[in-house]
Amino acid sequence: MSQIRFPDALVERGEEGKKIVLFVLDGLGGLPHPESGLTELEAASTPNLDALAAKSSLGALVPVLPGITPGSGPGHLSLFGYDPTEYIVGRGALSALGVGFDLQPGDLAARLNLATLDSQGLVQDRRAGRPSDEVGRRVVEKVRAGIVPPDGIEVFLDHEKEHRAVLILRGEGLKADLSDTDPQEVGVPALPVVALDPGSEKSAGLMQNILDQIQVILQDEPVVTGVLARGFAAYEGFPSFEDRYGLRAVAIAQYPMYRGVARLAGMDVRGVPTDPSGLITLLEEYFDDYDFFFLHFKYTDSRGEDGDFDAKVRAIESVDPLIKMIQELGPEVLVVTGDHSTPATYKAHSWHSVPVLIASPWARPTGDRFGERECRLGDLGTFEGKHLMSLALAHASRLAKFGA
Amino acid sequence: MSQIRFPDALVERGEEGKKIVLFVLDGLGGLPHPESGLTELEAASTPNLDALAAKSSLGALVPVLPGITPGSGPGHLSLFGYDPTEYIVGRGALSALGVGFDLQPGDLAARLNLATLDSQGLVQDRRAGRPSDEVGRRVVEKVRAGIVPPDGIEVFLDHEKEHRAVLILRGEGLKADLSDTDPQEVGVPALPVVALDPGSEKSAGLMQNILDQIQVILQDEPVVTGVLARGFAAYEGFPSFEDRYGLRAVAIAQYPMYRGVARLAGMDVRGVPTDPSGLITLLEEYFDDYDFFFLHFKYTDSRGEDGDFDAKVRAIESVDPLIKMIQELGPEVLVVTGDHSTPATYKAHSWHSVPVLIASPWARPTGDRFGERECRLGDLGTFEGKHLMSLALAHASRLAKFGA
Repeated sequence: MSQIRFPDALVERGEEGKKIVLFVLDGLGGLPHPESGLTELEAASTPNLDALAAKSSLGALVPVLPGITPGSGPGHLSLFGYDPTEYIVGRGALSALGVGFDLQPGDLAARLNLATLDSQGLVQDRRAGRPSDEVGRRVVEKVRAGIVPPDGIEVFLDHEKEHRAVLILRGEGLKADLSDTDPQEVGVPALPVVALDPGSEKSAGLMQNILDQIQVILQDEPVVTGVLARGFAAYEGFPSFEDRYGLRAVAIAQYPMYRGVARLAGMDVRGVPTDPSGLITLLEEYFDDYDFFFLHFKYTDSRGEDGDFDAKVRAIESVDPLIKMIQELGPEVLVVTGDHSTPATYKAHSWHSVPVLIASPWARPTGDRFGERECRLGDLGTFEGKHLMSLALAHASRLAKFGA
Repeated sequence: MSQIRFPDALVERGEEGKKIVLFVLDGLGGLPHPESGLTELEAASTPNLDALAAKSSLGALVPVLPGITPGSGPGHLSLFGYDPTEYIVGRGALSALGVGFDLQPGDLAARLNLATLDSQGLVQDRRAGRPSDEVGRRVVEKVRAGIVPPDGIEVFLDHEKEHRAVLILRGEGLKADLSDTDPQEVGVPALPVVALDPGSEKSAGLMQNILDQIQVILQDEPVVTGVLARGFAAYEGFPSFEDRYGLRAVAIAQYPMYRGVARLAGMDVRGVPTDPSGLITLLEEYFDDYDFFFLHFKYTDSRGEDGDFDAKVRAIESVDPLIKMIQELGPEVLVVTGDHSTPATYKAHSWHSVPVLIASPWARPTGDRFGERECRLGDLGTFEGKHLMSLALAHASRLAKFGA
């Protein structure tokens, strides 16, 4: 792998105290409005971001690789410097993180569909008619109460949303090379859990045991009479931010998914900001205790997925005043970017590059606006997201010279 | 290798029907004219390409790697998404493709020089005084008629051009780790075929047998009294476009080399366009039958190699009207680029980046001219050719989200 190896690349611990703030506006990148020809960020009034851009190195960040649209997991791992094509997080594990479950190395996670099966066990509705969260939570609670864990195994079950839940097994030697039980069609029975390699046979048996128990527990339910399992994933554990970069890192994020991805990288997670200013309150509270601060703002992505161009513009404008407050804390490096684009016209995550700025005493400024067009012409050019951490560390004087 | 794996990266076959047209203007990229300071493409009057550029994502495509000048094989494999540093096509195999030979996996190909050897078998002229194509064809025909294939082996021989011919052996277990017989100097005998690894010894014997037969057949010729073999290559077979991208792909190209490289990627090859408008006639004819269309236009490269700046400008202008016709067929994605640069001032393939545009509903436009300077400042930045297919698939909504 032609990557500079961390932590070899770090300076000796002499530069401690030089702090890095990474402010992620989820789904920041956009596409031009059909009338104005301006993107959401270009259309937004952002005096503080623009003033910062004028003092920053600008660039266009490709989250994973050209043309590749990342989910939230890979998008953030890339920003954290973990090549998302090497550090893979399975669907089940991401679901567990998404509900705020404290995933441990060795855990085996699966995504469950609450489903409707008939008395013969044939699948009638793979999503049980998309039950309300109330129904979903009640059913999951009933299963949790009734299930008997096999010897030496801990079983965790959490409701995600509507028909989705997540199942986690914790124990020795669990493996995830298991086939889904979701047949992906109706009128047929759920598939058995099959071990896709010999090492996974024990896990297959345990998982089947649990799923059989759930079937019995749900048999008298009116609608949710069974579950279908897919996306089995064993969580391996990644090298921590501290080990990799020598940074004491903290995440300040409202939503479980992002708190979870930060935990994957070994970050502490502190507080639950409920509005933009809450991010700053928590940043101030913990500023002396850490070297690296990951701040996550969700609504740029949400409004983009809604397809509401103006609301995404307003979401961007709502965080602009925070920039000044972050600067007043005096971090050595302030990075502002997104984990991917979510253009309001596209109504989904996309592959398009994301504007990025790196403010530090060592910036090479090229423009005075923070937007797709200005950033694309910036000093950093177009680069893969996995390199962002190297740039941030360099601007914080935390990277050693490579070679003599 | 931290690359996205195909076909895992594809969406489920739901987006079929969204068509991609890749229009390759061979050797498109150029260098500034000493007087005007404009490249061939910048100097050309291209109203249709410029109008398309204004609605497209623009970029600068590096065919292989910075500073690397590709041949036609690697240049096109890169555009097709096959990393040309991994998918190697030997010289002999390319020659076979170049003469339109239907190369099969397992075939062993070699490039032959028609040469003049004296009665002692010493090389007098490695190119037999560059015989006319007439002489070359006659001699090759004579050899073809006289040769006796060894048991279980098929032997194919084709004249390429002047002193060049190509020899293909077809049979079980042929290997290509063989040394050239061309001594690269005169006054010495041709070298024997030597197996460079034990597995190639059988092939070495078969090849030497054929070459000895050719020597005898040509002994009474006035000029072409022998052959020298080099560039032994076994063709392995590549994953097909259909398997890799789920695309039914067709190539519309006039010249054997490009038809051959398309066959390497498992594309169908249809028709033989004899002028620019012929490309469109064939595109229209097959438009309903395929998802992906590779259109190849040769003369931008030919005029560049001639060193005729104005003629290359005219070649570019001759295809500009075709753009409108392609758009009228309504492909979801239209990509226009080249497989490499062939600057008229350089009179050869070069390593310089190539302008590229991707027109789709999801483009992020940045300029209203299709030229080196505008493209260099485009939203796609400067990227390696091997990523072009990911971008084209993404713009056609054919790539799934990576991770959750």
